[in-house]
Formats: sequence, C-alpha cells, structure tokens
Amino acid sequence: MQYRRLGKSGLKVSVISLGAWTTYGGSVQDKAVVREIVDKALAGGVNFFDNADVYAHGKGEEFLGEVLNDTGVPRHHLVLSTKVFWPMSENVNDRGLSRKHVLESIEMSLDRMGTDYVDIYFAHRYDPETPLEETVEAFSDVVRSGLAHYWGTSEWTGAQIAEAHTYARENGLVAPVTEQPQYSMLWRERVEREILPVTENKGIGLVVWSPLAMGMLTGKYDDGVPEDSRFGRDSGFGERYLTEENARRVRALKEVADELGVTRAQLALAWVLRQPGVSSVITGATKVSQMEDNLGAAEIELSPEQLERIEAILAS
Amino acid sequence: MQYRRLGKSGLKVSVISLGAWTTYGGSVQDKAVVREIVDKALAGGVNFFDNADVYAHGKGEEFLGEVLNDTGVPRHHLVLSTKVFWPMSENVNDRGLSRKHVLESIEMSLDRMGTDYVDIYFAHRYDPETPLEETVEAFSDVVRSGLAHYWGTSEWTGAQIAEAHTYARENGLVAPVTEQPQYSMLWRERVEREILPVTENKGIGLVVWSPLAMGMLTGKYDDGVPEDSRFGRDSGFGERYLTEENARRVRALKEVADELGVTRAQLALAWVLRQPGVSSVITGATKVSQMEDNLGAAEIELSPEQLERIEAILAS
Amino acid sequence: MQYRRLGKSGLKVSVISLGAWTTYGGSVQDKAVVREIVDKALAGGVNFFDNADVYAHGKGEEFLGEVLNDTGVPRHHLVLSTKVFWPMSENVNDRGLSRKHVLESIEMSLDRMGTDYVDIYFAHRYDPETPLEETVEAFSDVVRSGLAHYWGTSEWTGAQIAEAHTYARENGLVAPVTEQPQYSMLWRERVEREILPVTENKGIGLVVWSPLAMGMLTGKYDDGVPEDSRFGRDSGFGERYLTEENARRVRALKEVADELGVTRAQLALAWVLRQPGVSSVITGATKVSQMEDNLGAAEIELSPEQLERIEAILAS
Amino acid sequence: MQYRRLGKSGLKVSVISLGAWTTYGGSVQDKAVVREIVDKALAGGVNFFDNADVYAHGKGEEFLGEVLNDTGVPRHHLVLSTKVFWPMSENVNDRGLSRKHVLESIEMSLDRMGTDYVDIYFAHRYDPETPLEETVEAFSDVVRSGLAHYWGTSEWTGAQIAEAHTYARENGLVAPVTEQPQYSMLWRERVEREILPVTENKGIGLVVWSPLAMGMLTGKYDDGVPEDSRFGRDSGFGERYLTEENARRVRALKEVADELGVTRAQLALAWVLRQPGVSSVITGATKVSQMEDNLGAAEIELSPEQLERIEAILAS
Repeated sequence: MQYRRLGKSGLKVSVISLGAWTTYGGSVQDKAVVREIVDKALAGGVNFFDNADVYAHGKGEEFLGEVLNDTGVPRHHLVLSTKVFWPMSENVNDRGLSRKHVLESIEMSLDRMGTDYVDIYFAHRYDPETPLEETVEAFSDVVRSGLAHYWGTSEWTGAQIAEAHTYARENGLVAPVTEQPQYSMLWRERVEREILPVTENKGIGLVVWSPLAMGMLTGKYDDGVPEDSRFGRDSGFGERYLTEENARRVRALKEVADELGVTRAQLALAWVLRQPGVSSVITGATKVSQMEDNLGAAEIELSPEQLERIEAILAS
Repeated sequence: MQYRRLGKSGLKVSVISLGAWTTYGGSVQDKAVVREIVDKALAGGVNFFDNADVYAHGKGEEFLGEVLNDTGVPRHHLVLSTKVFWPMSENVNDRGLSRKHVLESIEMSLDRMGTDYVDIYFAHRYDPETPLEETVEAFSDVVRSGLAHYWGTSEWTGAQIAEAHTYARENGLVAPVTEQPQYSMLWRERVEREILPVTENKGIGLVVWSPLAMGMLTGKYDDGVPEDSRFGRDSGFGERYLTEENARRVRALKEVADELGVTRAQLALAWVLRQPGVSSVITGATKVSQMEDNLGAAEIELSPEQLERIEAILAS
Repeated sequence: MQYRRLGKSGLKVSVISLGAWTTYGGSVQDKAVVREIVDKALAGGVNFFDNADVYAHGKGEEFLGEVLNDTGVPRHHLVLSTKVFWPMSENVNDRGLSRKHVLESIEMSLDRMGTDYVDIYFAHRYDPETPLEETVEAFSDVVRSGLAHYWGTSEWTGAQIAEAHTYARENGLVAPVTEQPQYSMLWRERVEREILPVTENKGIGLVVWSPLAMGMLTGKYDDGVPEDSRFGRDSGFGERYLTEENARRVRALKEVADELGVTRAQLALAWVLRQPGVSSVITGATKVSQMEDNLGAAEIELSPEQLERIEAILAS
Repeated sequence: MQYRRLGKSGLKVSVISLGAWTTYGGSVQDKAVVREIVDKALAGGVNFFDNADVYAHGKGEEFLGEVLNDTGVPRHHLVLSTKVFWPMSENVNDRGLSRKHVLESIEMSLDRMGTDYVDIYFAHRYDPETPLEETVEAFSDVVRSGLAHYWGTSEWTGAQIAEAHTYARENGLVAPVTEQPQYSMLWRERVEREILPVTENKGIGLVVWSPLAMGMLTGKYDDGVPEDSRFGRDSGFGERYLTEENARRVRALKEVADELGVTRAQLALAWVLRQPGVSSVITGATKVSQMEDNLGAAEIELSPEQLERIEAILAS
C-alpha cells in the first residue's frame, strides 16, 4: 500500500481508504461480512476509514466502529474520520454547522464510534445559515480540546475553503487540512477548475469520494440501467452521470483496462490517484472481493502514454 | 412553529419561547401543571426555554430543569438559557459580573438545571463595578470551556453591547450573539433608537421579554387596576406602563384584534415578531390555555395595512 | 464591614482581612481557638482570608482551610488567597516562579486547603531566575484553567508590576489585579513613591501586609524591646522599624488614638485604609479580642484635621 | 551537585543527568541494579532523568519510571523528560511529529512512565514530512494542556530551531526552551558553529548527549576496537569517532586527566560543562561505580591554562 501525506499535513493516509457510506449498518447488516472486508483492508495496508453521522443514520459509525474495535488494531494505527452537517432528526438545531450542533454532534459521533477522538472531522457541506467565523471557531475548538486531530471540509467551494483557511490563520485558530470532493473521470471540472487552485496553494489535501461515479465507471451500465440499481432508485445522483456520452466513454475505457489486465473500476481508482492534489480515494465494498479489487488499484502504474489515451477518451 | 436564527448566529430558536420567570417554582408550585404547559409548548414546536439564577431564587432553574428532563426530549433538541447578575444572597461577591461570580454562578446554575451546559448564558444586566474586559473574558471562558454554547446580554445599552462585541473580536475572545431587552408595543424607544442600530449592524439577535408590558396589553386593565394584580403589588414595573394614554391605546387595539379573530395578547406578540431584529419573544404561562394562546400568536399574519393602523394607535 | 473592589477588578474584599501568617498551624496549634477567631471574623463581615504555601510550611493552608470548611460558609462567599515563591524544601525546583513550580505548587496548595480553586494566587516575590514571560504565562494558565480566579504579585517593584501587566495585555494573557506590599505608618516610601504610580494607573489594587509594622505600632515597645518579642527573636524585620525616631512617633500617636477612643493598633489600620489604592489590610489575630479590635478599626472615621496631625507626627 | 537554569527558563537541572538510553530495560534488565544506580544519582543530587519513547522500545520509560516511583522521591523534585519522533512500530503514523503522533505519543509515554506529566518533551529529530507550524502547535498544546511543562528539540539545525522559536512567539504559542545535541570533545563543530549562535541568542539551553563520544573518550580504544564493543556492533555511530587522529587525541588527554587525578571520562564531562550554553550533560551508567564517576565530574575545576592545553590537543 502507498501512503500519502494529507495535503502538506503530517498525517499519512493510505491512498485507498474504506468508507462506511450508507452501506455498513444500512444495506449491509451482517457484521461478519464487514469484519472480513475490514480484515482484508487492514491486511492490505488500508489505515483510513471514513464515516459520517448521517450514514445509515448513525448506524454507519456504530457498525464500523464496533468492527474496528473488535479487530484489536491499536487505535493510534488508524485514521478515523466522521462528518457533521446533514439533519439527524426533524429538530431545527440537529443539523448544520452552528457551534451548538458541531459541539453536540462530535460527542454523539464519538460515542457511537466507541473512540475518544477522530483523526479528521469533516464539515459535510457548507452551511449558509451559520457565519463562517462561528463554524471555523467551533471546529478549531473541537481540535484544540482533543476530540479531533484535524478538520476538513466536504463539497465546499474554493472561495469558502479559502476564506475558512485564511480566517483561521489570521485569528490563531486551527485551519482545515483537507477537502473531500466528489471526483472521478466523469466529474472533473469542479475540482480541477475551482478547488485545486485553492487547495494546492494552501497545502490542503483532497480525499475523493465517488471515484467510480456511483458505479457508472465499472461498466455495469454498458447495456443500460437495470431497474434495481442505485441509479434507478435514486435518480438524483444518477442523472449527473448517466448520459449517452458517458456510457460511450466508459465503453471506450475497456480497451485501456484490458491492456493493463485490470477492471475499469480499478483503472478509475488508479486514474484518480494520479491526479494532482489527491491524498486518498474513498472506496466502498460490500464483499471481500471488491475490497481486493480496490487494493489492486493502488498497484497500477499508468504510463504517460496511457494517461494521454484516457484523457482523449474523456475529452471525446 | 417558525424558527429564526439568533441574530446571524447558527443557533435557531422558536419565535415563541417559554420563560420560567418568577412563576415556576415561585407562584406556581405544582409540577404537574408546569409539565402540561411544557408538553403543550414542545408539541407546538417551542424549543427555547429561558431561565435565570434569580428567578424564584434558583427554584426556577430547578423546577423547569426537572420538568424538561422528565419529558425525555433529547438535550440537544432544546435551547436552554440562564442568566447571572442579580444578588443570590447578601454576600458581596454573590452578584454582579466579576470573573469570580460568573464562573461560580454558571456551575451552580447547571447543577440546579440538571444539565452539562446551557445554550445561551446571559449577563442579566451591565455591571458598572466590574471592568467590561473582565466580564467579556469570563463569559468567553465559559463558552470556550463548553459550559455554554453562546453568550448574550440583557438590558445593556447600545454602547455597552458595542464595546463588548468589539473588545471580544479584537482580542480573540467569544463575542455575544444576543441581547434580551424589554420590548413591546408600549415600550419601544430604547430598543428602536438605541439598541437596534448596534445589534443589527453586528448581527446580534434580540430575544424580547415582557412583550405584553407586564400584562397591560392583554386589556385586563381596561377598567382600572385591581388590588391583587402584579401591578398593584409591585408598582415599580407598573408605573412605566399604567398611564391613561396607554389604557386608551390598549382599548383601541381591541378593534384590530377582533378583526383578526385573536386576543390583544396574541396581537401584541405577533406585532413584536414583526419588528426588525427580533429572533424570539419570551412568553409566560401559568396554565395550558395561555401557552396555547401564545403558540397561536406565531401563526398570525399582519398585513401592511394592519401594521399601519397599529402604528397610528400607538403613536396617538 | 466595608467592602472594596480589588483595584478596578470586579472582586470585592472586606477592608479587614485575616491572614494565616506563620501563626495558624504554627505558633497557634489549637483549632478551637482559630475557629473562634474565624467565627468572629465571619460574623464581623470579613470575607477575605490570606494564606501562603510557606506559612508554617503548609500547615497554615491546612489549618485555616479545615477551619473554614468546618464553618459551613459556602465556598463562593469567601475570597481565599495563597502564594508561591519561597522554598518548600531543599529541592532546587521547589521554589521560585518557574512554570514547573507554579503549576505544581497550586495543585499542592489546593490540596492542603481542601478547595478546588483560590480566588487570588500571589507570586510571593519576584523571581529573577525565571523570565518574566514564563511567570506571567504560568499564572495566566492557572487562571484560565480555573484553579484561580485572579492573580497578583507581592513585593514586586513598580517596574516589574508594570512589565508583567503590559506583557499580559499585549499577548492575550491574564493580567495581575493586585499587589501585596508591606505598608504602614512606619513604612511608606516604597509604596507611595514607586508602587502607587504604577498600580493606580493600571487599576491594580493593594492588599497590605504588616500594617502594624510587626507590632511596633501597637505601642508595646514604648518602653523598649522585651527579650521574648518577635523583634527580639528575629532581628531581620525588627531593625527596619525599631529606631528611636519611630518609638517617639508611636508615643506621639497615642494622643490622637485616645482622642478617638481607639487603640494605636486600630488607628494604624484605619490610617492604612485611608491611603489611596488600598483595597484591604491583612490583619492577624491569636485571640478573639484581637480580631474584635481589628474589626473595630474598619469603623473609625478620620477627619482631615486628624489625618494632618498624623502626617505631622510621622514626618517629624 | 551544581544546578543550572535550562537556558534562561526557570527550570533548574543538575549539570549531571542520567539517561535511560537503550540501557535500562534493554541491555540492563536487573531492576535492583538500576535502583542502586538511581539511588546513587539521587543521593549525589541528580534531579534530571532523560528518556525517550524509542529507548528499548518503550521499556526505557517503563523501567526507569517504575524505579523512580519506587524511590518515593516526590514527583515535583524530579525533572523528567521523554521524546517523540522515531518509529514505534511499522505503522506509518506511529512516528514523526504530526499532530496525531505527538498527541497520541505523549499519552502513551506518560502511561509507561507512570506519571501525569513530563517536565520536558523533546522532538527527537526534525520531521521534514510535517509542517513546522503543525509540530510547534502540537507541542504547544501538549504544554498548555499540562502534559508537559516545557518542550525542546533534539538534533535540529540552527535554522529549524530559530524558525520554531519565532513561529511560537509570533503566534502566542509556547516556544521551545532547550535543544539536545550530540556534543563532546570529538564532536564540536555543529554545536559551536551552527547551534550556539541561535540558542544563546534565544535563551535556549543545551542538554548534551554522548559527551564521551560513544565511549571513545574513556580511552578504552587506546589499543584498538575490541570485537564485542558497541562500535564494533554498530558501526554507524562509531565511524564518526574512530579515527587515528581521535585515538591520538584521547591518548594525549591522559596526561591532563592524570594531573587532575581524574579519569579521561570525567575530564570529558567536565570539559563539556565548561562550554558556553550547556545546561546539563546526559550520562549513562550500567553500574554504581560509573554513576559515582559521573558525579565526580561535576566537582572538577578546570583552570584556564588546562583548558588551553586541552584545546591544543583537540586542535592537533
């Protein structure tokens, strides 16, 4: 496994990380299965496990937390993250990035995860209903009080990241060290045009989610969308990717993947890891073989010539 | 129920809030009654419960704290406030806003309330016998140590609020986010001329007490002051309101209220909520029906034409 | 009893305070006697009890701490102080104002006193072997962590006080609010020429020790020094006061005292309380009658004419 | 024993200190032996005991910690240090000076040592993979939270020390007070040309390790390197010293040592203590007689003439 510094921070994360997502404690309820996946990940060198309060409504934290604790791996060998922003109930303060919610939420997350601190605490979105100052002060206080070692943002704009970083530095507060954007072969513009110019300049590392474009990049939609797929059920994310143009691109990538002797999913992960500013790519797995595939992606070497061919396919 | 941000902070408060005032644990000793009122308030969407160390000499905190804890509503769904300033004993340091008293008092309040923190800690008046710097530093330390999420002032002058806010921002301390003034149809000048120009500019939200002018606005003094009324017993507050001019105004408001099919008390609450800068209005209730009336006020829509008529009556 | 703000801070101290000095737990070992004295002091309105780690080598803190706890007076009604600087053992770090010693010493003092915090923590002298910055940061951290509400200095020069205060204000640290100098009718120059110009300007209040000039001002040496007196045993302090000139002055003061119907000790205390910048005068008592006398001093009114006569006597 | 301030800080360290090094819990496993050595050191006035997480892989902390606790010497009479930087496992974050590792490591060190705080926490090397800002903030937080009283560096360059010190002062953080370099008669240039110009200017004190040049200065290699010596086993450190030139110098020092009636080891320690900027020299001992010899070095007086002769020998 390869490890990278999270941006220019001193924290090192495996380039392949495992996300609880809505899967663990949600669609996957069998702890023995998750334990197998986690064992495989640990054996393969994964040290970074991503979570959020909202994943399976808190069950993601409980589920993965318990499995990780059961492995007996020392806590300080792991990099654990969780997030705060999305509503956890109908209650009007049980959401967002107010000082109240951030401070209350970290306590509840740690409790569910069965740990005394997380390594990274993410603001899961920007909260336009809380002043940036209040949010930065709250996250800084979380770090200063030892409940998290670092904090970061997720899906913030370049301007919001820049302002948060600058406000923190100017006021003796702890600045964010990471941004977690959606980024893949099929979703590049926002990261490459808007985020990177800010994050690279400030030494903020990217942790990427949805590197497979919600599964689109596996090629499983080469012949159209099946009724019971995630895209079929939840069109919100799907529509972004599910275009004829993308389907053509994904089919065209098969040739490159075959040449390398890898799947297109692995190619997609390997490609993201070659992009500037990326520290880790968050993968999901519902069975051990998937985790194995994800781990394999970390070993793939892409030549300049292959990267150019990919670029040409994606630009088509 | 409608919720508003407390000023520009990320905290959201119900526009109708319930105050312990000197009632709970004081004139009302029956917990079952208070529980019914609180249940009604919660069912109606009230999330903000106001208190002070001095209300019923600490009994207000104990009483309402116990009732709220008994409801089983998760702590983080509630916005609890309390205050410090007024003497709690003959002791010379058991009052005011010295660092000593603020730090000792918050611990005693939390103990009485049965909670680990309040959401808002109010300086119940300005203390001319403590330097502003010492007071701001003490409240800031209370917030930074997690005993409160926010702090505010009550009945401070515009200049005092401005100085506290600026001193905090200039020195890396936590700034106040709210002011709790007396404000009603019959007591407007101080808020509108002096407070609002400061608080609106700084994003400080108003939480209003005595919106009914100590009951005057209910119309219950249309025919004069009864012997056993609060005004009769404690002329201090009463004199401010109990003028022939005000009695005439209150009688005149009946027509507007009748037209809307609401009581004058409800009209008075609804009017306050239409004023700029107001985040919440603190109401009292000694029986369930009063709480119901208060809740109803949140639903009242006042047309520009009705507001103009009210304005004309109040200006008369 | 009269109370004064400690300088311009919000803390209020009785003008007559009681010091453990080397007496309690030292020359006085009978707790019942001390309890009587403390009861008298409390009944008379004394709220400020001064101590130091070094008094009777820690026994002063233990002894007075236990007696005060036994009275049942609420902790927050009291103003407790203690000090750090003098060697507590032969150990080279068990003294002075290093960060190590200050942080270790406050914990040991609180333990001996049986309390969670002191109201004032004094630097008992200036430590030339520790940088001023280190000392100010350590005392500031003691206050910020809640182990003390305020901190002060004792027998520091005007320049040292000024530098400490300025360094604290300039660096976001907690500034000292009090200085405890030796000050009496017979020992004035240092306070009046050097200390007051600094402390009055910065709002730092004086708490005065040895207001009776080690007993000289009681008149008990009118006829010479007895063999077994404190002066006789420990000439260090005595020599400062025991001059023919002073003996003449003390004899001359008798006329003023008699006129007022008070003792010269009471006159001496009353005079100190009339001096600018003085918040409290620390008295000692080995029996109840002495405490009574001390309390009486707080009631004495000195006319401008009487003050002038005293001034003339002291200037002679 | 002579004590010196650690640089210009208020902490006082014995000029002779005892290091756990890889010895205690490593090559020496008999606690009774270590207890005898420690008793001798304490009796001789040593108050400073140096350690590191990496010494005997944590056993150094456990071993010396237990022995010191068993002596019953009050914790505040001791100056305990430990360090962080070198890998404690294969894990990628279990090393270096990231915020994560510093905060996790101090907790584990304190646990092994059986104490609530160390007096000095050292960054055992500079970590080029963590921003200096992150490292300084982490060490500052360790001090501010009471887990250490001071922090220092070990084997950092002058520029790194200067930058850390300046960054701390400019940002209200705790600055380092000590550097622990390798320094001896045979290894001078780095300290004298590069470190001292920075540390003397900033009041940073030197604590010196390997004052005997890995044993070379004892003269035990006068006749060549034996097979089973430390140099023989681990050539890395040895090569630095084991030159014909150095062997000649060490032989020449015998005359000076004999004249003083001391061993060359004692002379080497005494010489280091005469160099500017040095607060303490860390010695090792595997038997009581060695500790006795080390203690003896503190008593040696070197005349200007003798220092000149030594200088001439070393320059040859």
